[in-house]
Amino acid sequence: MKDNKSISAPVIKRLPRYYRFLGELLQSGVMRTSSRELSEKMGLTASQIRQDLNCFGGFGQQGYGYPVESLYREIGLILGLDKSYNTVLIGAGNLGKAVALSMSFEKRGFHLAGIFDNDPRKLGEEIRGLKVKNTSELEQFCTENNIQAAILCIPKYAAPEIADRLYSIGIRSFWNFSHFDPSVKYKDIIVENVHLNDSLMILCYKMTENKAINS
Amino acid sequence: MKDNKSISAPVIKRLPRYYRFLGELLQSGVMRTSSRELSEKMGLTASQIRQDLNCFGGFGQQGYGYPVESLYREIGLILGLDKSYNTVLIGAGNLGKAVALSMSFEKRGFHLAGIFDNDPRKLGEEIRGLKVKNTSELEQFCTENNIQAAILCIPKYAAPEIADRLYSIGIRSFWNFSHFDPSVKYKDIIVENVHLNDSLMILCYKMTENKAINS
Repeated sequence: MKDNKSISAPVIKRLPRYYRFLGELLQSGVMRTSSRELSEKMGLTASQIRQDLNCFGGFGQQGYGYPVESLYREIGLILGLDKSYNTVLIGAGNLGKAVALSMSFEKRGFHLAGIFDNDPRKLGEEIRGLKVKNTSELEQFCTENNIQAAILCIPKYAAPEIADRLYSIGIRSFWNFSHFDPSVKYKDIIVENVHLNDSLMILCYKMTENKAINS
Repeated sequence: MKDNKSISAPVIKRLPRYYRFLGELLQSGVMRTSSRELSEKMGLTASQIRQDLNCFGGFGQQGYGYPVESLYREIGLILGLDKSYNTVLIGAGNLGKAVALSMSFEKRGFHLAGIFDNDPRKLGEEIRGLKVKNTSELEQFCTENNIQAAILCIPKYAAPEIADRLYSIGIRSFWNFSHFDPSVKYKDIIVENVHLNDSLMILCYKMTENKAINS
């Protein structure tokens, strides 16, 4: 494996897709694949794929293709999926519930340790085996449970205060579904924003132009 | 406005972000902005921004910057946000509800006309003023209401059948939250996939490498 520092941002952003496709190949019992096969599945050129995979070590063998399992494992390690970052989710509304229930956190490097909401009607409700706690307990819980990341499934107006509170107890990593970007205020944090509106606008563009752009 | 056909896919993908930032500037009453200001907000270089905006017509004036309102409006038109594509949402679980309730469809070129589910307990429930209908009524409803796009908030196992049924009545555009990609089978459709798992894996990568990559 080459030094990850040298992998460019666009390649990084493609890593989860490689990981997904390789995982599907593995599930179907495919042990070797070629840049041509990956190219057809992923909508990238074969040469782009060879170039990408070359970034993290010479996996391919001319004429033999890529070993699916070790490539899958290696990309998982680069992504850090063997980690288990303790995580809280804030906001137990529809979106928070959907996120809590549908994600395989453990396979993605995370351990969901607590779910918080400030709506009294939600407190005590059980989601994914976790009882929803009052956000008033947030700081104590995070400190006691060595929480490293927070998932924000809260409205824009509620996000600045929650971000401030989490930042003040040392949490620096956010999976952010709110329409507020904490990285504008805090420069030393890691934020992965999910902008569903952007995705919807891209669909609108594709329909308007009537053209397919891989997503 | 230049011919949109000449705008490259990476620029297209940045358009919603420009649209968001310009919208925020407008809301704060800012009437002119510079590539430097946009650059700071968006985490792109100023020259990249000048190059991007140049793709759809020479908006900037050396030393005067960009007129926020007309740039915002023009990008909206390029994205097609003045359209109103009739849309159905399939799957009224937590994710479907969250999507139905949180998106400003009308400002994004869409009109949400119907919500469907096959769970008898959900039928008749009202979400965003729409009563959840039985998926058995899907074809008739879509035909009668000139539906042009479908939002799939259904599990992977349910998606192939629903995609087949929608395709058979002429629906070719999908906003897809399911872990099944209908574009593998159908090559003449437009699909915008939302892969929350990919986003979570990128967060894991950023935390593991402890570096910030703009998202």
